[in-house]
Amino acid sequence: MARDNSIRLFDLVLDSGCTISPFVWRIKYALRHKGFDLDLVPNGFTGIKELTGGRSDRLPVIVDDGEWVIDSWKIAEYLDAKYPGRPMLYEGEGSKVLTKFVDRWLWRTAIGVWIRCYILDYHDLSMPRDHAYVRESRERILGGRLEEMQFGREQRLPKVPPALEPLRGLLKETKWLGGDRPNYADYCVLSQFLWCGSVAKIPPLHDDDPLKEYIDRGFDLYGGLGRHPGMHTLFGLPKAS
Amino acid sequence: MARDNSIRLFDLVLDSGCTISPFVWRIKYALRHKGFDLDLVPNGFTGIKELTGGRSDRLPVIVDDGEWVIDSWKIAEYLDAKYPGRPMLYEGEGSKVLTKFVDRWLWRTAIGVWIRCYILDYHDLSMPRDHAYVRESRERILGGRLEEMQFGREQRLPKVPPALEPLRGLLKETKWLGGDRPNYADYCVLSQFLWCGSVAKIPPLHDDDPLKEYIDRGFDLYGGLGRHPGMHTLFGLPKAS
Repeated sequence: MARDNSIRLFDLVLDSGCTISPFVWRIKYALRHKGFDLDLVPNGFTGIKELTGGRSDRLPVIVDDGEWVIDSWKIAEYLDAKYPGRPMLYEGEGSKVLTKFVDRWLWRTAIGVWIRCYILDYHDLSMPRDHAYVRESRERILGGRLEEMQFGREQRLPKVPPALEPLRGLLKETKWLGGDRPNYADYCVLSQFLWCGSVAKIPPLHDDDPLKEYIDRGFDLYGGLGRHPGMHTLFGLPKAS
Repeated sequence: MARDNSIRLFDLVLDSGCTISPFVWRIKYALRHKGFDLDLVPNGFTGIKELTGGRSDRLPVIVDDGEWVIDSWKIAEYLDAKYPGRPMLYEGEGSKVLTKFVDRWLWRTAIGVWIRCYILDYHDLSMPRDHAYVRESRERILGGRLEEMQFGREQRLPKVPPALEPLRGLLKETKWLGGDRPNYADYCVLSQFLWCGSVAKIPPLHDDDPLKEYIDRGFDLYGGLGRHPGMHTLFGLPKAS
């Protein structure tokens, strides 16, 4: 059993202290869903290998009473397997498969576009000591200069809201993807909007987006877990005139 | 309890006797999943109102020991609620939400394109007495002449297989969407390929499509439920040269 009902989570944060990684965000929610307190260890993008005693160069990583678990999907499975008497993140094996499906769909649809719209903000908001690493690694992975990739985003951002219609349709019929209560599918989806809020110096969604109600409700969960002062508003993208 | 362990299902069939409706197909699988025998009442597209005693003009409709249930989503929920001791179609409320998501995603991705590629085959394969109704209703709904909509399909069909990549990715990691065993998410997905097989006079998928293994496994379930002699092969779409 987790000591003091808390589990240690290595966090991945920006200079403001706001979590950036969508995979860490979802685990913050998952731990609170299971009823645990968060024993957060804030970190930037660099030095993760040293912090985790050589165990991982990526986050999230948790330490539960001495037991290290690495990778968000593995952590979610671990939490349900180890604590089946607490609220479950997944309903069963099929729920894991379909959660991956909706998470990947949203990634292609939203973050797949947004990453190049916010990549310079992402760099500028990271800790100064991470700047060189963020620039080098993201320019290599995404294949371009940060400034050039972000340039012209005002033309690209309006393409995302219409593509989110399948999510809006679903949320017309249910309060949460988990039904009456949120579950890990919700945290995966919310974590992508949380990622965006952490880096978006200009908003990606329109003021009247029906998704706002769901996103606000999600950010308010667990005492406003998504309401870090470092977050930017997601709403206010101008409509095409 | 269903009399004789069988449930009556009003089927929607082509002239060959092969089921066409993807919503009927998924209920055929759902009933077998729950361990019931199928008491099929074959019908075409017309005369449904009379056959169901004025209860519905759409299929599927089931009659379970005198109780009529209409609409595939309602039937699936009914079966789990009424027979919770038999294998469940859904894992829980969240599973219903995510099943709708993957079903609608596939519909937009595959049937959304295929419908206009096969609409004349669809008409020609229906019962002669349904021809006038199928032509009038489909030309009205889809907004064009059947012949004109189907024309040029050789250019449009190759666009679907690449768009199915998210489903392929998922099925690399799991045997069924339901995990180790199929569940209603699988039947929803399979029913769309079954629909296609019932009408596709030329194949929509390439011979080497990794989806073939999953589709074949699904069609083989329950004694080859998807292997009606009226079905066409889904595989053999030529590759772009």
